[in-house]
Amino acid sequence: MPSIDQLSINLATVREQWDLPAAVAGCVRAGIPAIAPWRDQVAKVGLAEAARVIGDAGLRVSGLCRGGMFPATDAAGRRARIDDNRRAIEEAATLGAQCLVLVVGGLCPGSKDIGGARLMVEDGLAAILEDARAAGVPLAIEPLHPMYAADRSCVNTLGHALDLCDRLGTGTGVALDVYHVWWDPELEEQIRRCGKEGLLAFHICDWLVPTTDLLLDRGMMGDGVIDIPKIRGWVEAQGYEGLHEVEIFSAQNWWKRDPDEVLFTCVERHRSCC
Amino acid sequence: MPSIDQLSINLATVREQWDLPAAVAGCVRAGIPAIAPWRDQVAKVGLAEAARVIGDAGLRVSGLCRGGMFPATDAAGRRARIDDNRRAIEEAATLGAQCLVLVVGGLCPGSKDIGGARLMVEDGLAAILEDARAAGVPLAIEPLHPMYAADRSCVNTLGHALDLCDRLGTGTGVALDVYHVWWDPELEEQIRRCGKEGLLAFHICDWLVPTTDLLLDRGMMGDGVIDIPKIRGWVEAQGYEGLHEVEIFSAQNWWKRDPDEVLFTCVERHRSCC
Repeated sequence: MPSIDQLSINLATVREQWDLPAAVAGCVRAGIPAIAPWRDQVAKVGLAEAARVIGDAGLRVSGLCRGGMFPATDAAGRRARIDDNRRAIEEAATLGAQCLVLVVGGLCPGSKDIGGARLMVEDGLAAILEDARAAGVPLAIEPLHPMYAADRSCVNTLGHALDLCDRLGTGTGVALDVYHVWWDPELEEQIRRCGKEGLLAFHICDWLVPTTDLLLDRGMMGDGVIDIPKIRGWVEAQGYEGLHEVEIFSAQNWWKRDPDEVLFTCVERHRSCC
Repeated sequence: MPSIDQLSINLATVREQWDLPAAVAGCVRAGIPAIAPWRDQVAKVGLAEAARVIGDAGLRVSGLCRGGMFPATDAAGRRARIDDNRRAIEEAATLGAQCLVLVVGGLCPGSKDIGGARLMVEDGLAAILEDARAAGVPLAIEPLHPMYAADRSCVNTLGHALDLCDRLGTGTGVALDVYHVWWDPELEEQIRRCGKEGLLAFHICDWLVPTTDLLLDRGMMGDGVIDIPKIRGWVEAQGYEGLHEVEIFSAQNWWKRDPDEVLFTCVERHRSCC
């Protein structure tokens, strides 16, 4: 049974209700030892203040969301994305984040060239890798569900993400979110391929049936069809001892609830369903 | 440039406007040489009458939709699904369909065991294979987009479908729908693996950005982000000379339009965007 000591809350889960300081206070009240903030939440209070608030609360930071979004139509656009990722690395370092989570980006506007987008992603990752190594911030490539291939991430399987890691080398790994990969017939095999070193983050939520929105209808653990304990078992078989980060985008349900209730439910379901 | 001689209309594309005889007449008016009916559309007019109407019109049948849906909670349920697939094989033979398209089914109600569902699918396929061979009806396993893994098909990549074909042997192949597979980084490689014999059907439509409904928001060719000519090129490089079947579920757009306009648009976009 998972322990609350392993729990982290991705602050997207309560983003409609709480700003970063309120969410930090909420997690402390709930006994949750870690968070993963988004960059806009950090920017809103200021990086230094965010780091102070999180540090004073004694919370760990399982990751900073997010870098990536490398593809752009022209070279200037791609350079701007790379520069922004460099800033994200600095922010992650300042916050003491265990990794920078990368949602790598999809097709350029008007483009149908997913192969070209994938090359831009690899070029972008290569361009920021030395900065990440120097800062001690591992780059966690997050394969996103194939339904996001066009507009969010053209890296859609764990196998593809690991191919990138193999080519890029030290300082890269994956953020494994059960929501994105649960359907993959190669999942167990590819998790074995990750090994302990390649698994930088483990994200949990659930796939609802029916799912009514491609982006904002993720489920609380236990409310859907993902066999989270089985996937956690595969991850732990590789020696993973890191945090279990709850990340739920839920416009019609969890974002409308009392955020203390949301956190309470996360704690309970993490123990009982993960 | 594709020729109208290669065009087939999956009758789901106009299902809200026309019954089977009306759709057949519409295709004849539009100069479209082939259709793919759904079993409920056939049943509504009766199998013999459907065969007569289609035959009198001189239309080819690129496939019958659909068999599959093998997973069920208990043995009696699974037997009932297998029996239903045997009836579908007979119907496909009567209609002269080039294949029976199989949407294999997802998780059993209340289950999180996708591995178990996959075993039920393979068992079900094995159970109907001799009937299909005897009837001369190839079984076209259609890998569905991973967003349907829970409720429609637990076979979600071309590679997985081909693994099943390899194990089952003669009489099986795949129905390749660009909507379901366009995102797959292994797509070209797996199409090569299909070869000409393995490619039983080629379905076209488009992936819209944004996609507002997981099931009923497919796009007309040219309105989305799929590089259909590229995928068609990969398919034809294997020697595929079969039909290009347009299958569009579109509750808010194409299902609300004049069906003659829908067919006219299919013809035009097939020529200009595929």
